[in-house]
Amino acid sequence: MKKHVTSSVALGLVVTSFMVSANEPIETIKPVKEINLAQVELGKKLYFDPRLSKSGFISCNSCHNLSMGGTDNLKTSIGHNWQQGPINAPTVLNSSLNLAQFWDGRAADLKAQAGGPIANPGEMASSHTLAIDVIQSIPQYVREFKQVFGHDKVSIDEVTQAIAEFEKTLVTPNSPFDQWLMGDKDAITEYELSGYALFKNSGCVACHNGEAVGGNSFQKMGVVEAYQAKGNAEGLSAVTGKDADRFKFKVPTLRNVELTYPYFHDGEAESLTEAVDLMGRLQLGRKFSEDETARIVAFLKTLTGDQPNFQLPQLPPSTDATPKPQPFDS
Amino acid sequence: MKKHVTSSVALGLVVTSFMVSANEPIETIKPVKEINLAQVELGKKLYFDPRLSKSGFISCNSCHNLSMGGTDNLKTSIGHNWQQGPINAPTVLNSSLNLAQFWDGRAADLKAQAGGPIANPGEMASSHTLAIDVIQSIPQYVREFKQVFGHDKVSIDEVTQAIAEFEKTLVTPNSPFDQWLMGDKDAITEYELSGYALFKNSGCVACHNGEAVGGNSFQKMGVVEAYQAKGNAEGLSAVTGKDADRFKFKVPTLRNVELTYPYFHDGEAESLTEAVDLMGRLQLGRKFSEDETARIVAFLKTLTGDQPNFQLPQLPPSTDATPKPQPFDS
Ligand code: HEC
Ligand code: HEC
Ligand code: HEC
Ligand code: HEC
Ligand SMILES: [Ca+2]
Ligand SMILES: [Ca+2]
Repeated sequence: MKKHVTSSVALGLVVTSFMVSANEPIETIKPVKEINLAQVELGKKLYFDPRLSKSGFISCNSCHNLSMGGTDNLKTSIGHNWQQGPINAPTVLNSSLNLAQFWDGRAADLKAQAGGPIANPGEMASSHTLAIDVIQSIPQYVREFKQVFGHDKVSIDEVTQAIAEFEKTLVTPNSPFDQWLMGDKDAITEYELSGYALFKNSGCVACHNGEAVGGNSFQKMGVVEAYQAKGNAEGLSAVTGKDADRFKFKVPTLRNVELTYPYFHDGEAESLTEAVDLMGRLQLGRKFSEDETARIVAFLKTLTGDQPNFQLPQLPPSTDATPKPQPFDS
Repeated sequence: MKKHVTSSVALGLVVTSFMVSANEPIETIKPVKEINLAQVELGKKLYFDPRLSKSGFISCNSCHNLSMGGTDNLKTSIGHNWQQGPINAPTVLNSSLNLAQFWDGRAADLKAQAGGPIANPGEMASSHTLAIDVIQSIPQYVREFKQVFGHDKVSIDEVTQAIAEFEKTLVTPNSPFDQWLMGDKDAITEYELSGYALFKNSGCVACHNGEAVGGNSFQKMGVVEAYQAKGNAEGLSAVTGKDADRFKFKVPTLRNVELTYPYFHDGEAESLTEAVDLMGRLQLGRKFSEDETARIVAFLKTLTGDQPNFQLPQLPPSTDATPKPQPFDS
């Protein structure tokens, strides 16, 4: 059976690479277009700047570390004053492809999202006013905002716009699987391909499909069998108020899933093996053999694409007028 | 008087640029040599890797942020579990030029230093055994250690060696002042030059001299007048046991001092203006006018050199065998 699937997929390749791609439920990641490069450079600095937090210690990159797949690789995050967060931090990689932001979709897009963590007392614990005061006390920032936005006013609107524009560049094309989709049949092994066949034929692609292999719908966690979650995230119903939306979460992207452990909204699945096994049982009522699970895991690892590739940004120094960080409440 | 000094310095330039440099108490930063590039690349990853900490959240770069002058810009650092550190984190930039490491010099060199924070319960709160277990569970690291060191054994010795080799690359040449030293008389302004003259003629160069403009001796903090320090760091005497060494600290480098606020071992001086004013009074018994202090500060800002300039490193992912981070004591 596995052999059969593999070779029928391989047959597809004979036609043309475009055909293969067009027939598959997963699409290659398209290059980003219409990007404002000046905003990106500014947004990159802000993304790495811990002065947007009350303590002066926590930046976006603390929890969405771009050296580690855009996550913190913790079950739940560490916020201001070492507070334990309520939910697993999703990757920012390819987050521009999501239909909405956050597990429950409560932010419409990246710009709407970016203001949240700055003022969240459990995350960066600053306020928009304070963050703007900090930025406005730093002439190099003020100059750059002026160059980028063409006016003197720095408000949270420009800050979130620049961060969102930077995040749009965080797509990860050229994964082995994408190369395979584009017609390079040697880009992944027969073994990995057999995992893809299982992924496709078992029904995983019903929810994990498209460019991001997820990110484009909200689905119940625990369709066939209930999931015993840790924490008390209720999912989409928190946004819609509808009882039918209880425990529906945004289907996470499986792009770079090799890097974004631990898994699920509560971070309780430590390994991909565990996550795949659970998905099979809870979402599809299917118990994979160890061998099948291993093949699917091998396939999922072919979804790791080009990671962010830029110079470590250099932040403009504070001045005597810059509000001081307040790391310790005294 | 200021005019006079300025023009005599300018006269020096007429001879040859080498002559000028040779006559000055401050030397240009020499390019690094005899660097093992493979060790550097490995050390860079380790430097950015929060998995060397118990929580999985704190890396060397958390406290010595290479986007911010190699410091955290906090009075005292935030360590594991948000513990408040006892002393200000010095920059790692140009730290290879120091006669010894730490404010009290208790580590002979960068290699001897690098093991400290990993196992320090107030900083990264891991242990050498745990850190090595983490590394050894990650095949990409194991392979890289083998390539770099030529043998299979990964021990704390190779870890600290690689980190130290990376740190040796963190020198900051080409500051405006170094360009001036090399003969480009337009590299700094007359005003900045007058600050240098004051710095030289008032006696600051007695302690702040050489390649790092400091870092090459231990000196009493509060020579003429006592310093009312916060915290209870006792300085060199903690290492030598000699009473005469009480309150002697390693003279900090003034390279990139514009970026390494706040100042002094307790981080109590928030601005360069404050630090220069205090240095004048406590070390030299001299009260600078506001104008003089401003000129010295302007000079000190010409010591900001080329900042670290490399791609954000990508860390190899953990595996199922990797010991899990323990951010929260439960
Ligand atoms: C203290 C940790 C922490 C910090 C700091 C932090 N985040 Fe997050 N981030 C999270 C967590 C946790 C979530 C998930 C919250 C939820 O879904 O309810 C999240 C969600 C997101 C998402 C949504 C991704 C998705 O697929 O839904 C984006 C985008 C994002 N953060 C970007 C940022 C940016 C930009 C910053 C800085 C301005 C930032 N984050 C700061 C922890 C953090
Ligand atoms: C009915 C929709 C649905 C189906 C079918 C489905 N998933 Fe999921 N998947 C989800 C949702 C929703 C989540 C997030 C659940 C949560 O975090 O609570 C998820 C999470 C995951 C994760 C964890 C990703 C992360 O970053 O946390 C993996 C891996 C995964 N799915 C793989 C699979 C595989 C393999 C299959 C097929 C065996 C599958 N999924 C089938 C909806 C689905
Ligand atoms: C929690 C904060 C923190 C972390 C994490 C940390 N450091 Fe430090 N570092 C400090 C502090 C504070 C000092 C000064 C301690 C002293 O002098 O007693 C210091 C001193 C140093 C020095 C001496 C510099 C000098 O001029 O004397 C070097 C070099 C250094 N650290 C490198 C590292 C490396 C490498 C790592 C990671 C393996 C690291 N640090 C992790 C806070 C930290
Ligand atoms: C007798 C030796 C000595 C003299 C003279 C001296 N310094 Fe210092 N300087 C030190 C020491 C020691 C420290 C560190 C003290 C501490 O942190 O407690 C220091 C610290 C500094 C700092 C803070 C650096 C940092 O990163 O924290 C600045 C700025 C500075 N000196 C500038 C000056 C200037 C300007 C003069 C002349 C007016 C001067 N110094 C004269 C020994 C000296
Ligand atoms: Ca995750
Ligand atoms: Ca400092």
